[in-house]
Amino acid sequence: MGYHANLADFSDVDDRKEEALKMLLENYKALTIDQNNWVCNLSNASSLIWHCYRSLSIDINWAGFYFVNDDKKELLLGPFQGKVACQTIPFGKGICGVAAATQETQLVEDVDKAPHHIACDGDTKSEIVVPIVNNGTKRTLAVIDIDCRDFNAFEDLDKEYLEQLGKLIGETCIF
Amino acid sequence: MGYHANLADFSDVDDRKEEALKMLLENYKALTIDQNNWVCNLSNASSLIWHCYRSLSIDINWAGFYFVNDDKKELLLGPFQGKVACQTIPFGKGICGVAAATQETQLVEDVDKAPHHIACDGDTKSEIVVPIVNNGTKRTLAVIDIDCRDFNAFEDLDKEYLEQLGKLIGETCIF
Repeated sequence: MGYHANLADFSDVDDRKEEALKMLLENYKALTIDQNNWVCNLSNASSLIWHCYRSLSIDINWAGFYFVNDDKKELLLGPFQGKVACQTIPFGKGICGVAAATQETQLVEDVDKAPHHIACDGDTKSEIVVPIVNNGTKRTLAVIDIDCRDFNAFEDLDKEYLEQLGKLIGETCIF
Repeated sequence: MGYHANLADFSDVDDRKEEALKMLLENYKALTIDQNNWVCNLSNASSLIWHCYRSLSIDINWAGFYFVNDDKKELLLGPFQGKVACQTIPFGKGICGVAAATQETQLVEDVDKAPHHIACDGDTKSEIVVPIVNNGTKRTLAVIDIDCRDFNAFEDLDKEYLEQLGKLIGETCIF
């Protein structure tokens, strides 16, 4: 399939978000046909998400994952693209912790108005967090987290496709 | 300590590589005082390396880790910043695989002249790979891998400080 790096090239999609998000899902599937290691797959997935959104000129400043540390009922920082981030988030705290505890996508137009927002980066204005759930046990495995420097950057279309990505990750990765 | 994201700000170091690399080590230590999870710590470390080198106007296109999958005697893709990358590298193959097998830093001025180079991205011109070794068992745990779009981007100074980072990672992370 040529260079792996080319899978991060979303420039052909002509700025249409839905086409880019479809390509994101297809590229994730291609990368995980023979690979079920969660660290490996989430590392490449964070790159796909980052380059997908950046190619659409959406000014995201962070894209990646927090995963569940069962021992302590907390989320731990997983693979991501962007600046250094908070290492631990208690279940139920912050936007990520709420998504993990409720298993409901959190779509936040303005993080400063979210009562439980934990700020890792003062530049972040809006955020989407999507839970990744084990299909069998129904336990939360991880969350997808994307931050943007603009208010109201995410909409139902992002939710729809990122939830599909979350489902794919749950199916393709052994945590 | 303010926003975690601020630890990725190397702009005050006035373009002096040694100061930036010292700050990289100090920021890694600050982030890992109470944290020994290897996925969490390598995720933040990849961000520190990326922003350190980019702040020096060194045109790196990839910074991150491959970790050892003991079952298969291979390296698996770990946390990184940059474009999508190859998921697996056999021990002894490619520049990463040689670093893992020999436990010697590989400093490659021109990847096209390296007989065993595995190309994940055609833009890469030079590369440095530093092994991370368990201090007790002396087994390879992972490698630090940095790629640059310019020839001959890395020198003995990079080797010296990145080997210190590799040693710190070996001491601060449970794999």
